[in-house]
Amino acid sequence: MIKIFKLKNIISIKDFEREDVEYILDEASKLEDIAKSREVSEELKGKILGLMFFEPSTRTKMSFETAMKRLNGQCIGFETTGSSSVSKGESIADTAKMFEGYSDALVIRHELEGVSKFISDIVDVPVINAGDGAGQHPTQTLLDLYTIKNEIGEIDNLKIALIGDLKFGRTVHSLANALGLFNNITIYLVSPPELKMPQEILHDLNKTNITYIEAEKIEDVIDDVNVLYVTRIQKERFADIEEYQKIKGAYIVNKKMLEGKDLIVMHPLPRIDEINGDVDNTKYNKYFTQAANAVPVRMAILKTLIKNNPK
Amino acid sequence: MIKIFKLKNIISIKDFEREDVEYILDEASKLEDIAKSREVSEELKGKILGLMFFEPSTRTKMSFETAMKRLNGQCIGFETTGSSSVSKGESIADTAKMFEGYSDALVIRHELEGVSKFISDIVDVPVINAGDGAGQHPTQTLLDLYTIKNEIGEIDNLKIALIGDLKFGRTVHSLANALGLFNNITIYLVSPPELKMPQEILHDLNKTNITYIEAEKIEDVIDDVNVLYVTRIQKERFADIEEYQKIKGAYIVNKKMLEGKDLIVMHPLPRIDEINGDVDNTKYNKYFTQAANAVPVRMAILKTLIKNNPK
Amino acid sequence: MIKIFKLKNIISIKDFEREDVEYILDEASKLEDIAKSREVSEELKGKILGLMFFEPSTRTKMSFETAMKRLNGQCIGFETTGSSSVSKGESIADTAKMFEGYSDALVIRHELEGVSKFISDIVDVPVINAGDGAGQHPTQTLLDLYTIKNEIGEIDNLKIALIGDLKFGRTVHSLANALGLFNNITIYLVSPPELKMPQEILHDLNKTNITYIEAEKIEDVIDDVNVLYVTRIQKERFADIEEYQKIKGAYIVNKKMLEGKDLIVMHPLPRIDEINGDVDNTKYNKYFTQAANAVPVRMAILKTLIKNNPK
Repeated sequence: MIKIFKLKNIISIKDFEREDVEYILDEASKLEDIAKSREVSEELKGKILGLMFFEPSTRTKMSFETAMKRLNGQCIGFETTGSSSVSKGESIADTAKMFEGYSDALVIRHELEGVSKFISDIVDVPVINAGDGAGQHPTQTLLDLYTIKNEIGEIDNLKIALIGDLKFGRTVHSLANALGLFNNITIYLVSPPELKMPQEILHDLNKTNITYIEAEKIEDVIDDVNVLYVTRIQKERFADIEEYQKIKGAYIVNKKMLEGKDLIVMHPLPRIDEINGDVDNTKYNKYFTQAANAVPVRMAILKTLIKNNPK
Repeated sequence: MIKIFKLKNIISIKDFEREDVEYILDEASKLEDIAKSREVSEELKGKILGLMFFEPSTRTKMSFETAMKRLNGQCIGFETTGSSSVSKGESIADTAKMFEGYSDALVIRHELEGVSKFISDIVDVPVINAGDGAGQHPTQTLLDLYTIKNEIGEIDNLKIALIGDLKFGRTVHSLANALGLFNNITIYLVSPPELKMPQEILHDLNKTNITYIEAEKIEDVIDDVNVLYVTRIQKERFADIEEYQKIKGAYIVNKKMLEGKDLIVMHPLPRIDEINGDVDNTKYNKYFTQAANAVPVRMAILKTLIKNNPK
Repeated sequence: MIKIFKLKNIISIKDFEREDVEYILDEASKLEDIAKSREVSEELKGKILGLMFFEPSTRTKMSFETAMKRLNGQCIGFETTGSSSVSKGESIADTAKMFEGYSDALVIRHELEGVSKFISDIVDVPVINAGDGAGQHPTQTLLDLYTIKNEIGEIDNLKIALIGDLKFGRTVHSLANALGLFNNITIYLVSPPELKMPQEILHDLNKTNITYIEAEKIEDVIDDVNVLYVTRIQKERFADIEEYQKIKGAYIVNKKMLEGKDLIVMHPLPRIDEINGDVDNTKYNKYFTQAANAVPVRMAILKTLIKNNPK
């Protein structure tokens, strides 16, 4: 049976069914040799990707560029609002229509939720949401799932701890939503009380088969998980700086606490100090692998959308 | 008979004869399938375009990049003076000599009139003026003519209204000059008294067969034209802000005034509010097509100049 | 006998033996036709170069980009710290690990000496130092040597005057070190007393067969040399501005002083006024050729390192 990927745009991970996720992960596996530069591809030769980054995000932008270029495609775009026509008073809609005229697909990053969706409604080319405000960052979630599948062997039966800022962390929201598509998942939600997972995400999880357990300390869950998914706690989130100083140590992962455990450590990066440097040279460190996985996963997305939606 | 394009540089539309314009427009037509990504080209494989943008212009820069990349060429360059060596005290001449060493052609954007010409005198590679001060923007004019030819069928016999800021608008000056190469052209010059077409352009027009008629209101000319070419009126042009508020409404195009008419609306973009959003989804809207036409026209220019002038 | 290039990284010219320099210069010669766009190459097709420019350097960055693109490779990167993840508090090490995941080789520019070496110790891909603080800029030295060899015929037996700021000038330090690998070299060190060649470089030279002679005026040495290698004297180096005004004229090269001499003038550029514009159109001017030589030399480096060190 020939599988097809039916989404035209990648706006929210909530638009995905399990088979859509699996399609991208399978495609990404097939593209590994090209991503790692062991094989040369002309898959997207002559195609152009428009990168509309209204807020900077070096890592995301650069991995999309790398993905496009490994497939022999090319990129155009801007990386701050200041360097776009929007700074001359042009509407986002007009800027997007201009990019549509030049490109085979668009990648959008904006501080406001909903901008990617808005643009996808007015242009004919595929649109990829590369992060909009507190909203979605679906391609990050796909590369997280790809990393879990590669490192653990499957996504079903996963026991994962989401650690740190679960209130504002866009990546943990999207990942929790996506795990609802898989079977027998247990999620440990490890955060200070001020930064607990929002009610609406818990409400989403209640509609799935996911078992979730809230906790305040990594120590309480570390023996029960395959994956520690660490995120950064920003001190700006705390009204009381002393409160921040008091609690932040409880959410730092170090080598000593990992010893003898059968698990991996992931992080969407950039990290500041929430993973100690002594973890870097251990087998637990999968956050650099995870970062590199952005390339085959975004290659899979670009190839699929552009091939399925010729201009 | 084999036609050849005899210009080495594109500095001013005034350097063009009719056959030069036609050469570029014909070439652009042939490149449409590549511009629209329906066909892959290696026409400029291995070639490098140097983009020297001393003042930012996202749209122009990006369409040149797109044009080069669709032909399998590559780009280098900067997009503000701050990111060029000129910020370290290097002369424009030395910067241009450096770019000459790296590139197969140069595109220059500068706030001062004459900079493109100056550079073309000191380098051996072809130079393209992408806008210098109040001077020329010849590739914009070529894409305007291409749009008129595609949408109206021919350029001869055109009846066009140039609307808005005719005093400072570089694109309308160049376009008026270029239309002098064609037959039986009527131009309606529609502007507030403060922003009338300058005497030197009218003087140029007097030397051609163009019929031109000055008017103050769109309503006065709308029944007589094939094309409304709209430009923005900047409030900074008015000493008296109340005067600006009073007159600006007279130069806004909306859907209602277009209904039943047999014409198209063009605009060099970006627009602010001088074309109402309700025109976007009508048949009159050709400004997004015009923007997209930048790609095949600039492809034609790059291909022609680089092929005709090997390093 | 098949020669091989044994360095994995290009960190300091002091790591080179004579045969390593000759390998790169020979390879650069073979790549001239591609550099000058007379021939098309797919040598680095599908490969990606990561450009990590923590401080801006248009000329260096653009020549690396040109070199990569002439070989059909692609580039990603940033050109100021502000546009890197480091501005979000990420460590240089983590940023480098991210780039390692995306790229086949890294080019590093940083204001601090030692950063390139540090990064080369933590990543598996080849690292090229494109200038670190007052330290090394080895690829500049290689293109200087390439220019000398092409213009004079050989490097052995060279008589060269290094002129200007010999105290802080990174390029003259590296070049003096590199000349120690060749035979029968005489270096004239021409500078104001405040800006004499540092003792540690003289100490290095004492360990070689180089003959060096210190002088204060160009006139004293101009009849004895094949090459005037001019660098800029920055007025910021002087506590006493009057002292600067008094001496600076003695280090300016002009056409009159060159007439009848059998020598060439080189400069790492950008220049301000230390070479008079009247030299530009004479046979003595090799500084623009030297700038253009950056392309074949950096092509040779990129090709050699990436081919020798597949991911």
